[in-house]
Amino acid sequence: MTYELSTPREDFYNITAQLKEAIAKSGVKEGVAVVYCPHTTAGITINENADPDVILDMLHGLNKAFPDRAEFRHGEGNSAAHLKASAIGSSVTVIIANGKPVLGTWQGVYFCEFDAPRHRKFFVRVLGAE
Amino acid sequence: MTYELSTPREDFYNITAQLKEAIAKSGVKEGVAVVYCPHTTAGITINENADPDVILDMLHGLNKAFPDRAEFRHGEGNSAAHLKASAIGSSVTVIIANGKPVLGTWQGVYFCEFDAPRHRKFFVRVLGAE
Amino acid sequence: MTYELSTPREDFYNITAQLKEAIAKSGVKEGVAVVYCPHTTAGITINENADPDVILDMLHGLNKAFPDRAEFRHGEGNSAAHLKASAIGSSVTVIIANGKPVLGTWQGVYFCEFDAPRHRKFFVRVLGAE
Repeated sequence: MTYELSTPREDFYNITAQLKEAIAKSGVKEGVAVVYCPHTTAGITINENADPDVILDMLHGLNKAFPDRAEFRHGEGNSAAHLKASAIGSSVTVIIANGKPVLGTWQGVYFCEFDAPRHRKFFVRVLGAE
Repeated sequence: MTYELSTPREDFYNITAQLKEAIAKSGVKEGVAVVYCPHTTAGITINENADPDVILDMLHGLNKAFPDRAEFRHGEGNSAAHLKASAIGSSVTVIIANGKPVLGTWQGVYFCEFDAPRHRKFFVRVLGAE
Repeated sequence: MTYELSTPREDFYNITAQLKEAIAKSGVKEGVAVVYCPHTTAGITINENADPDVILDMLHGLNKAFPDRAEFRHGEGNSAAHLKASAIGSSVTVIIANGKPVLGTWQGVYFCEFDAPRHRKFFVRVLGAE
């Protein structure tokens, strides 16, 4: 299943609702779901869904760990975004039980945009376990 | 399959034995296993199982890359732990062959606690391949 | 399926062709593929396949975020490589549709060597979805 989203700024965008929908539509009750980002300056992560300050802090901490650097060679000037994408990862895998993703109380699934503004896609693939 | 563990301090806790048990109980001989952490200040990784100094060095290096920062806003004061959780990742996927996880000689599977002390859970989901 | 490669230097080695071959040989048309690294100082990532400067910048940025440190204890002196391996991750999961990996236009799959020179292996496991 393919979803699209607009990402006006560098941010984490909550896509938990889309994941739940994709699992429900698949009819799979027990298995796993893979949420996949086909872009190289964005990623997918699972983290806090309650206090939005956590995401602000994470964006800040990622910028400190992987800053833009004068010596970077890539002409587009977005090498830091490529680094963050690989550190966060291009996908997450979530367990499905009773037709729902098994997320912790405070967990949400996020599309992580590191090179805004963009129009993006992500994919959800559901696999059943017998 | 659900496992619980106590995490008295920030550390990597070896959970390879639980993974092997979950695979054995599933009866699956060929497939994959997903080890999933439902918490937002902990993660799962695969790394060195021989010299415990590697884990001490990794904890130190993660603290240097993702330190606590005075400007963080999240009231609980554990934003660095959230960052480490997303950098390490909430799950690992391991290949199963002949009923066993295919790990390298030096690989172990670890529950990574970044916000101790806690009582935690993790899940293992096994998927068979025909 | 097992593949081998020589890694003469710290670099990202493009293994997209091997992934495509493994999927084709499996005969699976719809599902997922897991690309797995059984080493603790190397990893697997998905990132830019066009401008090789992106990889040079990423290697540089990873060295800055996870440098070698005088206070590291591990006698082999490669703790920074262990850190990078866990930050990048030991595997990637890719969706298969119509018998091919669903990669974005600019995405390639890379074996990330952080402790060269070595002779390495990686595994591909394909799972079909009904």
